[in-house]
Amino acid sequence: MTLYKAPLDDQRFALFDVLGAEAVLTGLEGGDGHTRDLLDAVLEEAGKLAEQVLAPTNWPGDQEGCHFDKDTHTVTTPKGFKEAFKAFAEGGWAGLTMPEAYGGQALPAVLGTATTELFQSGNLSWSLYPLLSEGACHAMELHGEEWQRELFMSRIVAGDWTGTMCLTEPQAGSDLGLLKTRAEPAGKGLHDATTYRITGTKIFISAGEHDLAENIVHLVLARLPDAPAGSRGISMFIVPKFKVNADGSLGERNNAYAGAIEHKMGIKGSATCVMNFDEAEGYLIGQPHKGLMAMFTMMNAARLSVGVQGLALSERALQNSLNYARERLQSRALSGAKFPDKPADNLLVQPDVRRMLLTQRAFVEGSRLLVLYNALQVDVEARAKDEATRQKASELVAFLIPISKALVTELSIECTKEALQIYGGHGYIGENGMEQFARDARITTLYEGTTGIQAADLLGRKILQLQGAGFRHFLEEISAFCQQHSADESLRAMIGPLAVYTKQWGELTMKLAGRIQANPEELGAAANDYLYYSGYITLAYLWAKSVAAADRSSQPEAFKQAKRDTAAFYFARILPRCLMHQAGIEAGVATLPQIA
Amino acid sequence: MTLYKAPLDDQRFALFDVLGAEAVLTGLEGGDGHTRDLLDAVLEEAGKLAEQVLAPTNWPGDQEGCHFDKDTHTVTTPKGFKEAFKAFAEGGWAGLTMPEAYGGQALPAVLGTATTELFQSGNLSWSLYPLLSEGACHAMELHGEEWQRELFMSRIVAGDWTGTMCLTEPQAGSDLGLLKTRAEPAGKGLHDATTYRITGTKIFISAGEHDLAENIVHLVLARLPDAPAGSRGISMFIVPKFKVNADGSLGERNNAYAGAIEHKMGIKGSATCVMNFDEAEGYLIGQPHKGLMAMFTMMNAARLSVGVQGLALSERALQNSLNYARERLQSRALSGAKFPDKPADNLLVQPDVRRMLLTQRAFVEGSRLLVLYNALQVDVEARAKDEATRQKASELVAFLIPISKALVTELSIECTKEALQIYGGHGYIGENGMEQFARDARITTLYEGTTGIQAADLLGRKILQLQGAGFRHFLEEISAFCQQHSADESLRAMIGPLAVYTKQWGELTMKLAGRIQANPEELGAAANDYLYYSGYITLAYLWAKSVAAADRSSQPEAFKQAKRDTAAFYFARILPRCLMHQAGIEAGVATLPQIA
Repeated sequence: MTLYKAPLDDQRFALFDVLGAEAVLTGLEGGDGHTRDLLDAVLEEAGKLAEQVLAPTNWPGDQEGCHFDKDTHTVTTPKGFKEAFKAFAEGGWAGLTMPEAYGGQALPAVLGTATTELFQSGNLSWSLYPLLSEGACHAMELHGEEWQRELFMSRIVAGDWTGTMCLTEPQAGSDLGLLKTRAEPAGKGLHDATTYRITGTKIFISAGEHDLAENIVHLVLARLPDAPAGSRGISMFIVPKFKVNADGSLGERNNAYAGAIEHKMGIKGSATCVMNFDEAEGYLIGQPHKGLMAMFTMMNAARLSVGVQGLALSERALQNSLNYARERLQSRALSGAKFPDKPADNLLVQPDVRRMLLTQRAFVEGSRLLVLYNALQVDVEARAKDEATRQKASELVAFLIPISKALVTELSIECTKEALQIYGGHGYIGENGMEQFARDARITTLYEGTTGIQAADLLGRKILQLQGAGFRHFLEEISAFCQQHSADESLRAMIGPLAVYTKQWGELTMKLAGRIQANPEELGAAANDYLYYSGYITLAYLWAKSVAAADRSSQPEAFKQAKRDTAAFYFARILPRCLMHQAGIEAGVATLPQIA
Repeated sequence: MTLYKAPLDDQRFALFDVLGAEAVLTGLEGGDGHTRDLLDAVLEEAGKLAEQVLAPTNWPGDQEGCHFDKDTHTVTTPKGFKEAFKAFAEGGWAGLTMPEAYGGQALPAVLGTATTELFQSGNLSWSLYPLLSEGACHAMELHGEEWQRELFMSRIVAGDWTGTMCLTEPQAGSDLGLLKTRAEPAGKGLHDATTYRITGTKIFISAGEHDLAENIVHLVLARLPDAPAGSRGISMFIVPKFKVNADGSLGERNNAYAGAIEHKMGIKGSATCVMNFDEAEGYLIGQPHKGLMAMFTMMNAARLSVGVQGLALSERALQNSLNYARERLQSRALSGAKFPDKPADNLLVQPDVRRMLLTQRAFVEGSRLLVLYNALQVDVEARAKDEATRQKASELVAFLIPISKALVTELSIECTKEALQIYGGHGYIGENGMEQFARDARITTLYEGTTGIQAADLLGRKILQLQGAGFRHFLEEISAFCQQHSADESLRAMIGPLAVYTKQWGELTMKLAGRIQANPEELGAAANDYLYYSGYITLAYLWAKSVAAADRSSQPEAFKQAKRDTAAFYFARILPRCLMHQAGIEAGVATLPQIA
C-alpha cells in the first residue's frame, strides 16, 4: 500500500501566492463569496475524502478490477467504490462547479481542478466515474434544452446518476468523421420532443456501465439520415440507460447495453465498456449535425482533467519515492558515510537519486501551476465582467489546453517511471504500488486525444488557424514578468534565459509558420517537438513566477528554499531539453521520409 | 497476439557488413570453422525456434503467469514453456557457446548474443530460465574446480538442469556488502571437498524454482564464519536443489526451497522467487571471500544479455507498430488524401507517426550494432592470438558493458512506449499485446544493476579508476573512422558532427574528472547524463559505420536507402539530445542540493 497526503500547502501556495486566485475570483461575476477562506475550507474537506476514503481503495481496486456479467450486462466495481461514490455525492462534490439553478454550488472551475487533483491522486480509476459526468453536464448546460437540463443534468449534479461520452467506434478513433452510429427520428416523446432510435457500437466508453448510481446518461455521437459525410454530419444525443418519465422517475430499460469490458494495462477499477445501442431511445442535444461542437465542449474540460490526472499520479508517486529514498538504507555517500551509526546511508545521500526526485518535484509542482493557471483562465473566460477580458481568457485557454493535457501527461509517464526506478527491483513488485502508478499513467497520453492530436491542435489550430492569439497574450505576460523582475537578486539566473527562450519561441514559431505555409506536411513533422518546446518554456516561466511569489510570501523559509532549489534545478537541468526540441522543430519533414 | 519475424537480414548486415565478424572470428584461436555460412545456418535455426515455438507462448504466458504451490514449494510455468525448453535443450542451444570439454559447441559469444536476441523477442519471460544458467556456467568455468564443472556445469550445458544467481537479500540490493546469508563448514562431501551449511533468505531469484528441468544449481553468495565485514567478506557456493551423487545421479532434496513468487508488473511467465536456505548443503566456488569476483564474471555476461533484452522487446514492438501504422486507416494526410479510394489514409502518411517509427528503428538497429560489437569484443578478449589484442578487447568490453546494458534498456522503455502510442487507445488493451512489451521492458533498467549503478560503473570505474583505457581505444577507433571517411559523399553530413562530438566527449570527460577529484559527489551528479551522452555518441558512430557499410555492401537498394534515411534521422533528431545531457554533466552537484 502506498502513502498519500493531500498536498494542500502546495495547492494554496500555487493558488494564492503565485496565481493571486483570490483577487481574480472575487472580482468575477458571482464571485463575491469566493474568498481564500472558503476555498481553503473546501480543499481541506476534499483532502480528507481523498486521503481517508479514496486512497485506501486504490491498490485493492487495481487488484480486484471490475467484473462484467455477460448474462445481465452488468458491471461490479471493486470493493469500496460504491461507498466512496455515496460519500462523494452526499458531500455535494458532484455539483461543486455546477450552476445553482440545477442544484450545484457554482464554485470556481479552478477549485474544481484543485479538488479533482486530490480525488485522482486518491484513486484515478474511481475518479473516472464522476469525471465523465462533468463533461456530460457541460454539454447539456451549453447546448441542451431547458427540459433536458432539468430532467437529466440536475440528477447528475445531485450525484444520483452519472454521465458518459460515447464517441469512439472501432473504425473511428482520432478521426470521428468515420463514425457510423445511426440515429433515426421516431415520433414524439418526453416534453413533446422528437425521439430518435440510436443504433451502433461504441468502444472505450469509460463508466459506460457500473453499479455506483441508479441511472447512466450516455451522450452519444451519431449520424442523422440526412447527415453529410465526415465530421460535419455528426449529431449528439442523450441516451439514458433507463428511460426517464416526465416526473423524473425511472421508466423501462433502454436498449443500450454494455457488451464487454476491456482488460487493460491499468485503471483496472474503471469499467471501459463496449456499448451496444440497438434502436435505443435518444434525444437530440443542440442542432442537427452540430454534435462535434457540443463534443468539444465536453472535450476541452475533459482534456484539462486528463492533464490533472497526470499531475495526480505523479504527485502520489513522488510522495512515495521520496519516502522510500529517505528510509531505504543502502551503500554509502560518495564522499564518505553520512550516517556512520547505521548499517548504510539512506538513498537521499546519492546525488543521482536526488536528481530523480527533483525531476519529479519540478514537474509535479510546475504542472500543478500550469493546470491551475489554465483553470483560472476558464473562470475568467466564463465570468469576467467585461467582454475583452473574457475574450482574452478564452484565447489563453484555447492555447493552454493542449499543453496542459499533453505535456503534463507525458511528464507523468516520466515521473512515475523515475519514482519506480528509485525503488530499484522493489518498484517492479505489485504490492509496493509503484508499478500501478506507471500503468495507470500510461492511459493519460492516449485518451481524450493522443499527444500527437494535442500537438497538432496546438500548432495547427491554436497557433496557425487562430493566428496565435492566446500565444501572443502569453508571450506578453512572460515579457512583462521578465521586465518587472529584471533587477530581482533571487531571479537573476532565471530571467536571462527565460527572456532569451521566450524571444526565440516567437521567432521559431514565425519561421515554422512560413515553412508550413509552403508545405503542410511540415506541421506534422514539427508538432510534437513544438509542443514540448512550448511546454518546457511555459514551465520555466511558472517556476520563475514561483520563486518571485515565494520571495514575497509568508511561507516558512524551508518551503521558500525548496522552491528556489527546484527552480534552479529546472533551469539548469530541464530547460536545456529545449535545445533538442529546437533541433527537432528545425529538422523538417525531409528527415521523416516515407516508410514502406 | 503480436507478430514476430526474426530480423535475420539486419543481424547479418550488422555482423558481416558492418562489424566484419567473419574475418575477426576466423582469425581467433579455435575460430577456423566460424565462417559466415556456419553462423548463418545457426541464426536461421534460432529464428525458427523463436518464431515458431517461443513467439506463440509470449502473450498466453503473460496471461497465465507462474503458479506457486506453497505446500509443495513448487512452481508451475505457463503452458508451452516446458515443451519449448525441451526443444531448446534438444537443439543444443544451452551449450551453444560453452566449452566442448563439457559438451558445448564452443561457438562465438557474438553468435550467442545474436541468437539470444531472437529467443528473447520470442518470449522474454521464458528466456530468463536458460539465461541464468549461462551466468552460472561462466562462474564455474572460470572460478570452479574441475569436478564441479564435470558434475554441475556439464548437466546445465546439456540442458538437463538450469542455474541461478542468488545475490539479493531484503536488506542488500545494490549494496551486496550488506548481505547476511551464512555458510558454515560441515565436514567432507563430494569429491572429498568441504561441504558448507548455507542459511539465509534470498529474494528476486529468477528461475529459483520451476518445472522445466530436473535439478536447479543455485550459485549463492554467503559469508563464512571468519569473513570480514562488507563486500570483501563474501564467498560463492554451489547449492543444488537436489543433492547430487558422485555418479551424477540425483540424491536427496536439499534444504533450499522457494518460499513465494513475486507478483510483478511484467515478465509474469518468469518465476521470481524468494529462496529460503536452511542449512542447505553447498560447495565453495573459488577462494574464500572472493565471491564478488566470481559474481562479476556472471554479472558482466548477464548485463550484456539484459541489454539484449531491451533490444529484443523493442524489435518486436517495432515490428507490430509498423504493421499497425500500415494497416490502420484514420484521417487524411496533411497535404491531401493519399489513398482517396479508401475511407481514410493509413497512419504512415502522418509525419509524427513516422517520427515514432524512425525513433524506434534508429534505436533498435543502433542497439543491435552496439550489443553485437560488444559481444564480438568478448570473443576477441577470450581468444585473440596475441595478448595485446586480448588486453585491448578486454578494456573495450569493460567500457562498453554499462553502455550496452543501461542505454539499450532505457531506450527499450522509450521504444515500447512509442510503439504502444502508435496504437492509440488500442495499445492500452491487453489482447493487442503492446502493453505487455512496455511492462516487460520496465524490468530491464532495474535488474542486474539499475541504470544508476551502470552509470556509476561507467564513470567511476571504467573511466576514472581504469583511467579510461577502453574509452581511449574507442575514441581512437572513431577518429580513425572519421579520417578514413572524411571524403565520402554519403557520410558528409555525419562525419562533421561525429568528429566534433567525439572531441567534445574527450574534453568533457577530462574536465569532469578534475571536478570529481575535487569533490567525489560530482560523480553522482554527472553519471546519468554522462552515460546517455556517451551512449548517443556511440550510436552516432555505429550509424555512420552502418551507412559506410551499406554503401559498400551488396544489399538491395531499398535496404541501403533505409539505412541512410534512419542514420540521417538519427543525426538530425536524436543526436542533439547530447546538448541537454551536456548541460546535465556541467550543471554540477550544486544543482542537486540536499532534500530533507
